[in-house]
Amino acid sequence: MSETLELYDYWRSSAAYRVRIGLNLKGLGYASHPVNLAPGASEQLSEAYRAVNPQQRVPTLVTGAGALGQSLAILEWLDETCPEPPLLPADPWLRAEARAFALSIACEIHPMGNLSVLRQLGQQFGAGEGELQAWRERWFGAGMAALEAQLAARPASTYAFGDTPCLADICLVPQAYNCRRFGIDLSPYPRLCAVTAAAEAHPAFAAAAPERQPDAPSLK
Amino acid sequence: MSETLELYDYWRSSAAYRVRIGLNLKGLGYASHPVNLAPGASEQLSEAYRAVNPQQRVPTLVTGAGALGQSLAILEWLDETCPEPPLLPADPWLRAEARAFALSIACEIHPMGNLSVLRQLGQQFGAGEGELQAWRERWFGAGMAALEAQLAARPASTYAFGDTPCLADICLVPQAYNCRRFGIDLSPYPRLCAVTAAAEAHPAFAAAAPERQPDAPSLK
Repeated sequence: MSETLELYDYWRSSAAYRVRIGLNLKGLGYASHPVNLAPGASEQLSEAYRAVNPQQRVPTLVTGAGALGQSLAILEWLDETCPEPPLLPADPWLRAEARAFALSIACEIHPMGNLSVLRQLGQQFGAGEGELQAWRERWFGAGMAALEAQLAARPASTYAFGDTPCLADICLVPQAYNCRRFGIDLSPYPRLCAVTAAAEAHPAFAAAAPERQPDAPSLK
Repeated sequence: MSETLELYDYWRSSAAYRVRIGLNLKGLGYASHPVNLAPGASEQLSEAYRAVNPQQRVPTLVTGAGALGQSLAILEWLDETCPEPPLLPADPWLRAEARAFALSIACEIHPMGNLSVLRQLGQQFGAGEGELQAWRERWFGAGMAALEAQLAARPASTYAFGDTPCLADICLVPQAYNCRRFGIDLSPYPRLCAVTAAAEAHPAFAAAAPERQPDAPSLK
């Protein structure tokens, strides 16, 4: 792939974190454009960013063909246009199981912690930080338990679905980061913890970590 | 595909509706096992169903290889193992755009109307039907507006991404059904309405409609 890739990114966005991992696994360089999602900045709602992505969400990958949102669509596109190393297992059923694992995170866990959802809970129901935390614990806890059960039913492996990282690990690591950030206890999920630790030690994952991004505040 | 497919299904589940459309488009027969999700029945929470799908969600497709949840993973598996007719455009960028459209529904609109989310809003915040409706209108409205903008930026076509239905239409039709069910006005979204009407007239979509399922209550 010779074209220049541009990623509209935010260090703490789980969805952007997934795409950074995918780009790193493929060995694809990209120009990073940070979009500050923090309440108070909300740069994703600016007119300038609306021109990039009318959905005003992060990440957006800009390629020679146009601008694309939705992290899983971006990752599937990367895998189809730049096949090595693959982001999904070769076996059709294993691919399906890995996609289901990734989608459980993307459709059932991650949305419940989105800033827009938390903001709506505050505006509509007057939810304060204690109630938002209870909300996160409800969804993150049940979601991680279901993922643990899915992995526990499989033979042991270094990564979620084998000896190389795939889409499942790409979604798991940012979700585990998010859980730790909000003090969700992951010790009831030993398989998830082991797989997360293995993936986080992989150079492509390590370089994508929030704290290593240019827009992360320096920790002094 | 010679194996027997079994679908654990619920007539009004949007996610199950997607899978029914996909199976019909592929011309694949299946045995239907209705799981009554209605509050009061909640058969998805039974021990019997937990043995089928530990995540206790609908749909589940049971094949010779095992049981698979997550509608988009099921549809991708169908497309990989039974390629004709394809559920995604051939062009890689168009595939990516169609997947992004489908994922916008699956990750941002649909989860907010899930029974489990509405139940949690009731339990945690005492939300009554009026507040649940305001919640739905917030997410369904913003989500449909974003989808309309995505289609409006494309050349006109019968279906969302061309002259044959794809994953985008498969996700749109159940979401539009859900909007109508809850009285969300779709008239501000003419492209979505036109594409939905075209798809609903397609035999594979028509046969998958909620009211045509064996567990739908008869309308007397």
